[in-house]
Amino acid sequence: MSLTNAIPLEVAKAARVGSRQLAVLTTEERNAALSAIHKALADGKEEVLAANRQDLEEANKHAAGGTLSASLVKRLDLGKPGKYEDMLQGILDVSDLEDPINKTTARTLLDDNLILSRITCPIGVLLIIFEARPEVIANISALAIKSGNAAILKGGRESYHSFAAIASIISKALETTKVPSDCLQLVQTHDVIADLLKQDTYIDLCIPRGGNKLVRYVKDSTSIPVLGHADGICTTYLCADYPVEKAIKIIVDAKVSYPAGCNALEQLLVEESALTTTLPAVAEALLQKGVSLRCDAASLTALKGKLDAHSATLLQEAGDKDFDFEFLDLIIAVKTVKSVEEAIEHVNTHSSHHTDAILTLNAQTAQTFLAAVDSSSVYWNTSTRMADGQRYGFGTEVGISTNKIHSRGPVGLEGLTIYKWTIVGDAQVSAEYGASGKAWKHEKLPVGDEMVAQNEEERELLRKFRAGKA
Amino acid sequence: MSLTNAIPLEVAKAARVGSRQLAVLTTEERNAALSAIHKALADGKEEVLAANRQDLEEANKHAAGGTLSASLVKRLDLGKPGKYEDMLQGILDVSDLEDPINKTTARTLLDDNLILSRITCPIGVLLIIFEARPEVIANISALAIKSGNAAILKGGRESYHSFAAIASIISKALETTKVPSDCLQLVQTHDVIADLLKQDTYIDLCIPRGGNKLVRYVKDSTSIPVLGHADGICTTYLCADYPVEKAIKIIVDAKVSYPAGCNALEQLLVEESALTTTLPAVAEALLQKGVSLRCDAASLTALKGKLDAHSATLLQEAGDKDFDFEFLDLIIAVKTVKSVEEAIEHVNTHSSHHTDAILTLNAQTAQTFLAAVDSSSVYWNTSTRMADGQRYGFGTEVGISTNKIHSRGPVGLEGLTIYKWTIVGDAQVSAEYGASGKAWKHEKLPVGDEMVAQNEEERELLRKFRAGKA
Repeated sequence: MSLTNAIPLEVAKAARVGSRQLAVLTTEERNAALSAIHKALADGKEEVLAANRQDLEEANKHAAGGTLSASLVKRLDLGKPGKYEDMLQGILDVSDLEDPINKTTARTLLDDNLILSRITCPIGVLLIIFEARPEVIANISALAIKSGNAAILKGGRESYHSFAAIASIISKALETTKVPSDCLQLVQTHDVIADLLKQDTYIDLCIPRGGNKLVRYVKDSTSIPVLGHADGICTTYLCADYPVEKAIKIIVDAKVSYPAGCNALEQLLVEESALTTTLPAVAEALLQKGVSLRCDAASLTALKGKLDAHSATLLQEAGDKDFDFEFLDLIIAVKTVKSVEEAIEHVNTHSSHHTDAILTLNAQTAQTFLAAVDSSSVYWNTSTRMADGQRYGFGTEVGISTNKIHSRGPVGLEGLTIYKWTIVGDAQVSAEYGASGKAWKHEKLPVGDEMVAQNEEERELLRKFRAGKA
Repeated sequence: MSLTNAIPLEVAKAARVGSRQLAVLTTEERNAALSAIHKALADGKEEVLAANRQDLEEANKHAAGGTLSASLVKRLDLGKPGKYEDMLQGILDVSDLEDPINKTTARTLLDDNLILSRITCPIGVLLIIFEARPEVIANISALAIKSGNAAILKGGRESYHSFAAIASIISKALETTKVPSDCLQLVQTHDVIADLLKQDTYIDLCIPRGGNKLVRYVKDSTSIPVLGHADGICTTYLCADYPVEKAIKIIVDAKVSYPAGCNALEQLLVEESALTTTLPAVAEALLQKGVSLRCDAASLTALKGKLDAHSATLLQEAGDKDFDFEFLDLIIAVKTVKSVEEAIEHVNTHSSHHTDAILTLNAQTAQTFLAAVDSSSVYWNTSTRMADGQRYGFGTEVGISTNKIHSRGPVGLEGLTIYKWTIVGDAQVSAEYGASGKAWKHEKLPVGDEMVAQNEEERELLRKFRAGKA
């Protein structure tokens, strides 16, 4: 890793050159680099924590002066029990994941001795811009190397010293490996971001990890593809048939378990006929957790009188803006809808296409919702907080994408890959085929070494074999 | 289909609304729309050809005045024998392709009764900008409907009347189907493009089909993701060990069979030791086809004296620009390289990452090239002209992408889809899992109804069965 103040064009060019070498390393060579980084960061713990204390000291001064929030200061602290060890374990976890590149994902026999293959490969050079938390650098570096991508990293300025210490350790560790050190470049000053965003010749994908403001700035400032999400306005549609205890369990988890998360619930849609049956108990449970309810007229009327024990400030009339807003706090907007169709219309218009859920016992209603809601993740009878790479079984995630192309929802290693097509032939040429020439065979071939039953006879064979063993 | 002069914001909004309805139609409903379009265009042939003659008349005037090329006029002509029928057949071909949406491509058991699925779905709204050929509108409309995407189409102004006639016929045909007519909108005036490119709230993907200038303009003018390629600078590396007859066959096909194609060969890299062995015969074959060779010093020296029978204008010294230029003509740049490493370096720096090939009998050299060349398609012992959706077995293509994300190489129906994640559960919530809670199962489940041998025992069973039948 280079800790650099070089000009953005040079940084991006060097990363591109490094990426070419990284892309052809073996799984073992990339994993060996992760082991080396893990060992070096374990050995260098005291050095990193000393630098981190410097960042904390400065951050505390800013917090005292009111220019930094206390919660941000907390997130900077690498010295909290277990945090450093979690960071180290994260590197080993990524190393243990299946190699996402050089996998053949499709094969077609075009003609005799003429085989088309689709092979996964790295995207190339990633530009990752993230906010304060210093441990992210280790995680992102591990994901980049594992997926064969070079990465230019720009961290939050509050972690300046921690980043510098970690970067210098990683840099030394990489010298003992086959991964060129230019493959990971840490950019320290904020003013180079604008120039980096112009390097679309050398940077293939930009991943901003942070708040709405950062993501919008990045999207508006570059022609490099951007992967991520700006808002996390998640909704849940509560149908009248859904059992109240399960509804409470799901909605409280979705709203309360981590209100600052992008997958936290921001809007509850309630079927009209549930206003006086299920809603009061759900509202009571939320109010007891300190959640403010911003209700439309119908739901407010239904709840008024029933929940008077609670402070009036917790039960308010919703404004129009409340249905297009990410609260990231113990606040929820409540809206009454007549049907699943109205719920779908509202979700497709007002959610941020991140994660939306329906709670119902009616399979047909649920299928209508799952099919029609145009979001990265759509759930039936569970909490929007499930949207997370680790929970999806990806090991870890680079972020959550609300993009409509490439990768959608939690993005793991697979989202950092693309593919190339290869053809291996024996001097067949295009002009031999077509109208008056040879016909294409276009026969699908098995991929890798897995064996798929190719016809009903073989499927029956497998079924009988399994039945015999069961 | 609406033929519209409406303001771009309204066009894009209406397409978005239509796309929501189109996305939930069944395979049969979408195919029925394709049948209706096919029938209507077959019935309306005379009407379309009359409009096309009007375009041709105007184009011929422009051609006579020197403001339009004769080859463009030729491409406008829908009345050429077989062309209209090919257009009609194309619609049926798309209808016959496998439905690319609503396919489950991954399933994971997160926990008992908690299943994560990845399901393919349409991208949403496509903006497709294409140049003259009027038959493209039918092909693109078919691809959009088949893949469940709404499309806003802007064709070349030279086809104004043909487009209008086709659009009006398609519009009437759609009225008898479940596909909302707002799903296909034809934009007629050039001046709305700039405004359409700003509608990133309603348009999900932009596909420019045309020359370098159009593609660069679109890429520079929008924050909507753009799929396509600007240049097609394809290269081929000829190794000294490759048989001369096969080399001639491949290189002549790549350069001569359709020089205006984006997959045509523009640069020949020659291994130094092949300069006096294979190159002269290859050069002779190209010269006989009227190809001009722009040679670096070493290859020029090797060829001078041997090919004097040909005009000196066909054998020239290359300028620096010739190795970064798409000739689209009977011209080829020739460069000498010492090794496969130098060839890879040249290709990664100077090709447009579209399609590049190596010709060699040495498997190790070929594998090095296939692995290290960072292009959409990389070939061993075949012609770059193979890069084409129909040849790859996709049925048809929307275009060829040199993007590093989403879809790379020839893009068929699959490239017009994305996926959503669904979870179906029974009130499990996120807070139940993790550190001190329940463990995730993360068990991969079979996808769809295909049967994959799940262990070595089952693989052995299939192997024996196949051996017994062989």
